[in-house]
Amino acid sequence: MSKSIYKPRPISGFPEWLPEVRAVEQQWFDHIRKVFESYGFCSIETPSVEEIDVLTAKGEVDKEIYVIERLHKEENDKEARLALHFDQTVPFARYVAQHFNDLTFPFKRYQMQRVWRGERPQAGRFREFYQCDIDVINVDNLPIHFDAEMPAIMWEILSSLPGMEDEKFQIRISNRKILLGYCQGIGITENVAEVLRILDKLEKIGIERSFNLLRELGLLEGQAQMLIDMTSLKTSDPNKIRDFIYKIEGVSDDVFQGLEELETVLKSLTHLPQGSAIADLSIIRGLDYYTGTVYETVFLDDPSYGSICSGGRYDDLAGSYIGKHLPGVGISIGFSRLFDRIRLKGRLPASRKSPAQVLVTVFDDAQRFDALKTAAGFRKRGINAEVYHAAQKFQKQLGYAEKKEIPYVWFLPAEGKGHEVKNMATREQIAANPETWEPQK
Amino acid sequence: MSKSIYKPRPISGFPEWLPEVRAVEQQWFDHIRKVFESYGFCSIETPSVEEIDVLTAKGEVDKEIYVIERLHKEENDKEARLALHFDQTVPFARYVAQHFNDLTFPFKRYQMQRVWRGERPQAGRFREFYQCDIDVINVDNLPIHFDAEMPAIMWEILSSLPGMEDEKFQIRISNRKILLGYCQGIGITENVAEVLRILDKLEKIGIERSFNLLRELGLLEGQAQMLIDMTSLKTSDPNKIRDFIYKIEGVSDDVFQGLEELETVLKSLTHLPQGSAIADLSIIRGLDYYTGTVYETVFLDDPSYGSICSGGRYDDLAGSYIGKHLPGVGISIGFSRLFDRIRLKGRLPASRKSPAQVLVTVFDDAQRFDALKTAAGFRKRGINAEVYHAAQKFQKQLGYAEKKEIPYVWFLPAEGKGHEVKNMATREQIAANPETWEPQK
Repeated sequence: MSKSIYKPRPISGFPEWLPEVRAVEQQWFDHIRKVFESYGFCSIETPSVEEIDVLTAKGEVDKEIYVIERLHKEENDKEARLALHFDQTVPFARYVAQHFNDLTFPFKRYQMQRVWRGERPQAGRFREFYQCDIDVINVDNLPIHFDAEMPAIMWEILSSLPGMEDEKFQIRISNRKILLGYCQGIGITENVAEVLRILDKLEKIGIERSFNLLRELGLLEGQAQMLIDMTSLKTSDPNKIRDFIYKIEGVSDDVFQGLEELETVLKSLTHLPQGSAIADLSIIRGLDYYTGTVYETVFLDDPSYGSICSGGRYDDLAGSYIGKHLPGVGISIGFSRLFDRIRLKGRLPASRKSPAQVLVTVFDDAQRFDALKTAAGFRKRGINAEVYHAAQKFQKQLGYAEKKEIPYVWFLPAEGKGHEVKNMATREQIAANPETWEPQK
Repeated sequence: MSKSIYKPRPISGFPEWLPEVRAVEQQWFDHIRKVFESYGFCSIETPSVEEIDVLTAKGEVDKEIYVIERLHKEENDKEARLALHFDQTVPFARYVAQHFNDLTFPFKRYQMQRVWRGERPQAGRFREFYQCDIDVINVDNLPIHFDAEMPAIMWEILSSLPGMEDEKFQIRISNRKILLGYCQGIGITENVAEVLRILDKLEKIGIERSFNLLRELGLLEGQAQMLIDMTSLKTSDPNKIRDFIYKIEGVSDDVFQGLEELETVLKSLTHLPQGSAIADLSIIRGLDYYTGTVYETVFLDDPSYGSICSGGRYDDLAGSYIGKHLPGVGISIGFSRLFDRIRLKGRLPASRKSPAQVLVTVFDDAQRFDALKTAAGFRKRGINAEVYHAAQKFQKQLGYAEKKEIPYVWFLPAEGKGHEVKNMATREQIAANPETWEPQK
C-alpha cells in the first residue's frame, strides 16, 4: 500500500466543525425544521446538481457555478453538463415544473441543503454552505398573504435560535415593482437591469460612486439623484414612500400595486418589536428572477456582514419551463454564515462532545457481556449509553468520560458491591437500579 | 427576462422524491441518528469535496470520481484540484488526522451525507446517494470489541426501519488476514491485489470465469482451486474455516489472528436470529484500505442487488497522513439503495403530504387576523397548524385539506356558532376549545 505524503489541511471556503460545534449545528437544524413544519411546510430535497441550462436560464450567476465532471470521462460523452446548484430557488422551481401533476397547490415546501458558489472565500462567504429555505408556489395567482407570512416565520426562527438571544437584526423589505415603475416614471427606459445592479450595491460602494456609475450609464443628473434619494429611504411607515412617489407624474399603476403589497407585508409584521422590519427601497437582490416583494436581513451592529436571510417573489420562474403561470415567493436563511458568526462571537450554547449520557465501565473482560446487557437496557429506555472498550483501570475509564463530557459513569456489581452510578459533575457515587435509574435533565 | 426553453427532466442517477416519500426518508434518517447516538457516536460532517490527492491516495477508485471546477475559472488558477467524495471513510480518516489534537480517542462518530460516484446508473446504483456511517478510530491499538459492535448496531437499525419488517437479510463477515495469509501459505506471493479483486467478484462473474482469470494471472490449477474452495465457504461456525486452514502447512500467524478476530465478531452476534450473520470468506471489499474485518449485508431473496451495509477495519488509513498509528473500523448503510428498494417494493409506511395537523379556515378577510392568532396558539402547544390562504368557499378549503392529507380542519366562530373542528377521517364536526383541543395521535 502506497504511503501517503499528503498533509491534511483545511480547504478554504469549505467549513467543517468539531463534534461539539456540530452538535449545536444539529440543534439549530432541528429547531428550524420544527418551526417550518409547524407552519405546514413539507420537506423536499433536490439533487446537488442541475443541468447547466437550468442554472443559467435566469440571471447573471454563471461565474459562481461549479461544474462537475468524471475524472476519467469517456470521449464523445453525450451526457448533459451538470453543475452544483448555487441556491435552492432555481432547483425548487424546476422541481415544481417537473412534478407539477403530483403536487397539491399552493405547494409549500422547506429545503435545508448545501449549496455551492465559487466566490472568493472571506468572513461569512463560504464556497459550500447550508441554506434553509421556505417557498410557496401556486397556480395562476399567489395571494400576498404568503409574502407576509415569510418574514414572520423567519423572525420567529432567528429570534429563538440558541445563541441569537442578544443579536439585534432587522428585516428590510422592498418591492421591485416600485423601483421599476419609478424608473419608468422618471424616464429611464434603457439599461434598467444595469441601473438596478448599481443600486443593489449602493450600501457597499457608496453614494458618490453609485451616482457616477449611473451617470456613466447615460442617466441625467436629476434621474441619478432621484434614484439615489429614493433608494436611501428606510422607514417603517410606507406613507413616506407614498409621499415620495406622488411627487412624480406619470408613475405607472405597477408602482402603486407594489406599494400596496409592501404595505400589506409591513402591516402583518407590526407585532414584532419596533424597528424589526422596515421598508427599504435599496433592497433589490442581485438575482434577476425576483418580480415583487424582496427581503434582506442584516445585523444592526454590522450591516456590512451582508444579509443573513433573504428572498422574494418570483412570478415567472417555475412556470416558464412548462408554459404555465406559477408565481412563487420564498425566503432563505444563510445558515452557515449566520451560524459561523455566532460561533466566532463565542455565543453558541454549551454542548457535549458525546451524545452518551452514561458510560458503563468494565471491571474485567468476563464482565463485558453484563455491561453490554446493562447498556442495552438503558437504550431501550431512551438513555444513550456507551460501554467502555477495555477492562482498564477505573481511573482511565473515568478520565475518558470526563474528556468526552459524558455526565454519568456506571459501575456493575463487583467486590461485594451492587450497581453504582457516579455523577461526574458532583462526583457523588451512589447505589442505583439499572432498570429504573434516570439521568437528570 | 429570457424565456427558458428547457423542459425539466430527471437526471439519471440523481434521485429526488415527492414530499410523501421524503417524509419517510426523514423518518428513516431520524431513526438511524437516534440509534447511532444511543451508542454514544457523535455526529460530524465533512465538506462534500476533498483535494484529489486525498481521494486517490488509497485504492483504485479514480474512475468514479467527480472533479469540480468553476465554470469561468481564471487562467493560471493555482487552487488545489477538488473532487466530490466517493465515500465517508476517506474524508473521516483525513478529518481525524487533521483535527487529531482536538479529538478524544477512541473517537466514535457517525456521518450521514451524500456521496458521489460516476458509475453507470442502474437499479440500486445511484450517482448521488446517502450513506450512513459509523466508525471508530483509536491511537495505537483498537480493541476487537469495536469490530464486534459495528454489525450489531447495524442489525438493530436494519431490522427496525419502518418498511423493513418483512425483509430477510444477512450480514456476511470475513477477515482479510485469513485470505491474505492463506494466499501466502499456498505460495501465492505475486499479484495478490489482483487475485483478491477477482475473488471479490466471484459471486458476480461465477466460479468458472474466476478460475480462468486466476489461471491467467499465473496461478497453478491447485492454487486457483483452493482459493475458490476457500472463498466458497459460508458458515456460521468458524471451526469449519479452522479445519480448512489446518489442511495447509506453512500458514502464517496472521491467518490465525484473523480467524480469532472473526470468531470474536461472530460470537458477539449469537443473540441475533439464526443465519443473520455468517462467516463468508468471499467477502473482500474492493477498496484497498481494509486490513482486517470486512462486512457486507445482502437481501437473502436477492443477493445480486449487492450489499446494503458494508465496511471493515482499516489500520493504516488515518495515521498515514501524520505519521501515527491510527487504526479504525467502520460500517456504512447504503441508505439510498436500501430506501429505494423498499420504496419500489411498495413497502414504505404510509405518510402524509403535509406536516400540518390542522388547517385553520378563513370565512372572510376580516377574520384572517383571528385565524393567524388561533394557529399561533396551536403552534405554541406543539401542534402544526396552517392558515388557509384565501377566504374562499369552505368546500374549497376542505378540499385542500383533503388533498394535502391534513387530518383536522378548524372553523373560527361565525354566524352564531363558536369554534369547531372537523375530523377529516370520520367527517365528524364538533365544538372545540382552541386553547385545550388536541389532535388524536
